[in-house]
Amino acid sequence: MNNEILDLHHEHIGVLSIQSELPVKNGIDLAKAYTPGVAELSKLIEKNHELAREYTISGKLVAVISDGTAVLGLGNVGPQASLPIVEGKSLLYKTFANVDAVPMAINQVDADVFVETVKNMANSFAGIHLEDIQAPRCFEIEDKLKELLDIPVYHDDQEGTAIVVLAGLINAAKVATRPLSELKIVLNGVGASGVATAKLLAAAGIKNVTLVDKNGVLTNEYEGINAYQKALLPLFVSQKDNLSLEEVLVGQDVFIGLSTGNVLTVDMIHTMNDNPIIFALANPIPEITPEKAKNAGVKLMATGSSDYPNQVNNVLAFPGLFAGLLESKAKSVDESLQFHVAKTLASLVENPTEDYFIPNVFEKRIVPTVKQSVVDFFK
Amino acid sequence: MNNEILDLHHEHIGVLSIQSELPVKNGIDLAKAYTPGVAELSKLIEKNHELAREYTISGKLVAVISDGTAVLGLGNVGPQASLPIVEGKSLLYKTFANVDAVPMAINQVDADVFVETVKNMANSFAGIHLEDIQAPRCFEIEDKLKELLDIPVYHDDQEGTAIVVLAGLINAAKVATRPLSELKIVLNGVGASGVATAKLLAAAGIKNVTLVDKNGVLTNEYEGINAYQKALLPLFVSQKDNLSLEEVLVGQDVFIGLSTGNVLTVDMIHTMNDNPIIFALANPIPEITPEKAKNAGVKLMATGSSDYPNQVNNVLAFPGLFAGLLESKAKSVDESLQFHVAKTLASLVENPTEDYFIPNVFEKRIVPTVKQSVVDFFK
Repeated sequence: MNNEILDLHHEHIGVLSIQSELPVKNGIDLAKAYTPGVAELSKLIEKNHELAREYTISGKLVAVISDGTAVLGLGNVGPQASLPIVEGKSLLYKTFANVDAVPMAINQVDADVFVETVKNMANSFAGIHLEDIQAPRCFEIEDKLKELLDIPVYHDDQEGTAIVVLAGLINAAKVATRPLSELKIVLNGVGASGVATAKLLAAAGIKNVTLVDKNGVLTNEYEGINAYQKALLPLFVSQKDNLSLEEVLVGQDVFIGLSTGNVLTVDMIHTMNDNPIIFALANPIPEITPEKAKNAGVKLMATGSSDYPNQVNNVLAFPGLFAGLLESKAKSVDESLQFHVAKTLASLVENPTEDYFIPNVFEKRIVPTVKQSVVDFFK
Repeated sequence: MNNEILDLHHEHIGVLSIQSELPVKNGIDLAKAYTPGVAELSKLIEKNHELAREYTISGKLVAVISDGTAVLGLGNVGPQASLPIVEGKSLLYKTFANVDAVPMAINQVDADVFVETVKNMANSFAGIHLEDIQAPRCFEIEDKLKELLDIPVYHDDQEGTAIVVLAGLINAAKVATRPLSELKIVLNGVGASGVATAKLLAAAGIKNVTLVDKNGVLTNEYEGINAYQKALLPLFVSQKDNLSLEEVLVGQDVFIGLSTGNVLTVDMIHTMNDNPIIFALANPIPEITPEKAKNAGVKLMATGSSDYPNQVNNVLAFPGLFAGLLESKAKSVDESLQFHVAKTLASLVENPTEDYFIPNVFEKRIVPTVKQSVVDFFK
């Protein structure tokens, strides 16, 4: 591995540190920063618990939490190996949105123990960002935490991905001059991000979505279908049983891959409608390479890689989104908010083209615009 | 309450923030700080879990944790109201020893659930600093965590207080020209700090310690005595049953109060040996005020307050101690280390006098000296 990267992460033991916001140079400072000053603050908070979030870091600190069960492109690496990922995400929060976030690895315990663990420490935080947790465990964890906690709970692999995919699709449809709601879509891969994306497509008024998982089209008869996948089926026009990805792609407008590398072929693309939209988002190996897709005549394409135009990168969503939630003291990250943010993100590309229908992560206006749009949503 | 203090804690929402140690200005930086750079790091850590503590913040971050069951001077204030305390401690870690610490409030769940909660998140941290947890619950929690975790676990109200008390006593004995090991001591208040102090006095070779709790001398027959208190009794010369604090103080050299305000009277001091040593450490109201003690002829006195000479303040111990533990990658904070650190702290006052036998918290040499002494201890 690249020694420069190792050195960068080693020099300060990680890429984050804690910073003091209050100088303590003498006894007078100490009395204000610590005791007896904080005793008075404790008494106030004892009477009104809400004040902890006004006067302590718990009012701004986001816990970025993983158990390492489903790291993108790597699979189940264990909690310790998820730490560079959640620390990286925390760094992006600080860098892009000045949001204070702390990385945490939680052991791979039962979903209910995981929930209890997070619940027991939730008074310490202003929000919970879940990361790289395996489906269907991630759905149960997120649902229960949302029910139990009075702070926002967000799973980036679900809501974050869904928002950026929809933003890209809104603009790709514009370039293709096709109404969004009439697109015929095949969504391949119905894990964490697939379930959330399907829910958001439905919330955006799209009815023609065919869900495909490892063994073909997802229907009530699909072997091993989970409750969260089952709940998606009534949202869309009904699907035929026992069809493969290849079979259902015929005559479709859009392929959204949230699955694994190399599952989409040039031949399959040729059976789709003219000027198809291809989102090949598997990482590090996409469902089809941009080079192959181009050879198949694809003009509207998004990937998960920064090496090509139109990168679906969650950093477009989560920093501004969470900054907005914190500013609004809002809790819910439901589909109506996700749809709203997706439209905001899409609108940041004023004149979408084939080469530029998803904004670039380093455009300065993204985070403030997303943040403001969240604040406006909750006004 | 003082508006200036409120404002100081409100301005930045608490007194700490997260700082980036790695600039992310473009795609090249992003690839190093986050993906795909961290994926390589994850793979390394997946193979060797120890590396997480070399390459992520988990190798330096101390969790300062309370449940708010026993906040000094305030009692059980609840988890939220403990946050200013643990945030203040975290600020002192950064200020005094450049140790990165994050404040956490844990719900007041059963001791075993508390232990499980901390265990489930312990991969995120380099050490656990427990704070203001009620006895005897704090003993069970600390013992179990020490057994389960491979990082240092430290309860400041126990080990921290014990270290500073012993340091002060070493020097007070010098000023009184009496051998430490021959001192006759009454220790009043056998909660978290009392139990730890008693253990450390025993480790320092002191045999004549009479333990007194709310209802008099602690013996095997003491009603409601807990297992942790019981384990102390064989460490000292045996005590008579059914005696009050007043009765056992007669002919003693030292009173150490880790109890509640105003329990020591001038008359009681007059029954003690000549030139008694009085540590009145209850906060905010001491067992006897320095003014009253002076009237009773006391010359060697320590309190918990910065308003008088010889303040027993845990900030003399914990920043340097934990910095040394982290540098040594050591885990154990047992009595032999505590004794070692107490001697180091005492030695920082080269010529102890009545007015100066405990160092002042703002002496710059304290933290580096304590830290180095811990490092030397583990060499």
